[in-house]
Amino acid sequence: MESAPAIRILLDELERLPGIGPKSAQRMAYWILNADTATALRLAQAITDVKQQVRFCSRCFNYAEEDYCEICSSPKRDQTVLCVVSEPRDIPPIERTGAYNGLYHVLGGALAPMDGIGPNDLRIAELMSRLGSEAIQEVVIATNPNIEGETTAAYLARLIKPLDITVTRPASGLPVGGDLEFVDEVTLGRALEGRRPL
Amino acid sequence: MESAPAIRILLDELERLPGIGPKSAQRMAYWILNADTATALRLAQAITDVKQQVRFCSRCFNYAEEDYCEICSSPKRDQTVLCVVSEPRDIPPIERTGAYNGLYHVLGGALAPMDGIGPNDLRIAELMSRLGSEAIQEVVIATNPNIEGETTAAYLARLIKPLDITVTRPASGLPVGGDLEFVDEVTLGRALEGRRPL
Repeated sequence: MESAPAIRILLDELERLPGIGPKSAQRMAYWILNADTATALRLAQAITDVKQQVRFCSRCFNYAEEDYCEICSSPKRDQTVLCVVSEPRDIPPIERTGAYNGLYHVLGGALAPMDGIGPNDLRIAELMSRLGSEAIQEVVIATNPNIEGETTAAYLARLIKPLDITVTRPASGLPVGGDLEFVDEVTLGRALEGRRPL
Repeated sequence: MESAPAIRILLDELERLPGIGPKSAQRMAYWILNADTATALRLAQAITDVKQQVRFCSRCFNYAEEDYCEICSSPKRDQTVLCVVSEPRDIPPIERTGAYNGLYHVLGGALAPMDGIGPNDLRIAELMSRLGSEAIQEVVIATNPNIEGETTAAYLARLIKPLDITVTRPASGLPVGGDLEFVDEVTLGRALEGRRPL
């Protein structure tokens, strides 16, 4: 590793990746050095392609390769329900549940007045415009269950309710399979508040 | 993530990397998607460059960008001591100790008769040729302290000793800072066998 500037440059670039420290970077660099050239170049090409081909869906701002993302262009999705999320990365976990078949709207962040992120920094105008022109009957606000996410949800609820559209938020409560003993008190408090008859 | 084949391809390629599972791959893919294009393309370029520019040193078979690696071309290295290692990745840890200033020879593996890896599959002929033409007085056999490494060390020792060259092997023993209680019995046995007067 002492010998080749190209290896040192690769190590530096790999270490920029999230969750990759010097040891992981070194393991990955040696893997790349040992891999046959076609395999390594496929990885390089995949990185290049993603930057050249992926853009934002012009309707919901999810990642897309066409004007509309696959969800927005699918005829199978319920066009009357819209789920608001902070980032594109929040969509796959919701999709994996199989419990949601509506549309999405990606805000591009959450309100954080302390960091100077206000309503104009998010795609809220675009959301309101969709609510005016599309046949949305329910908006599910799936921002993160933290301060910024809750603030954003409350702000959006106040904007949307006058439009005669149902506004919902996923339930907070005990994680399934979790251990009551180890649940934090805020979550447990929410779970108790949201208790349901059996 | 459901939306773009380019992202799916990138995920597949990232998951091939060692120690990278689906979650790490996803985190890395989103990082690449969010990164500015120049940063992402620098990573792609670093991978490409390493495959195009890095080859094996024609003398010691370490990674190199010229005919000789940086170690072989350095005038500061002791030309009378040669350390034999299995893979190029074994060199950086030895260099980091600061305890070694000689040359290297990379075998490209270790003897493993069960896997059909014999002397002709390693760069042993090249090693013997170097010992014949260079001014080597000591060979340190730093193959791994496992069955294959020990077998390889014993095999090489038998080949080299008749040449009137000193053959050594790094000491096996207790890891510094380790806890006697948790040391495996083979290591502890070696440490006792190799005990030294204080």
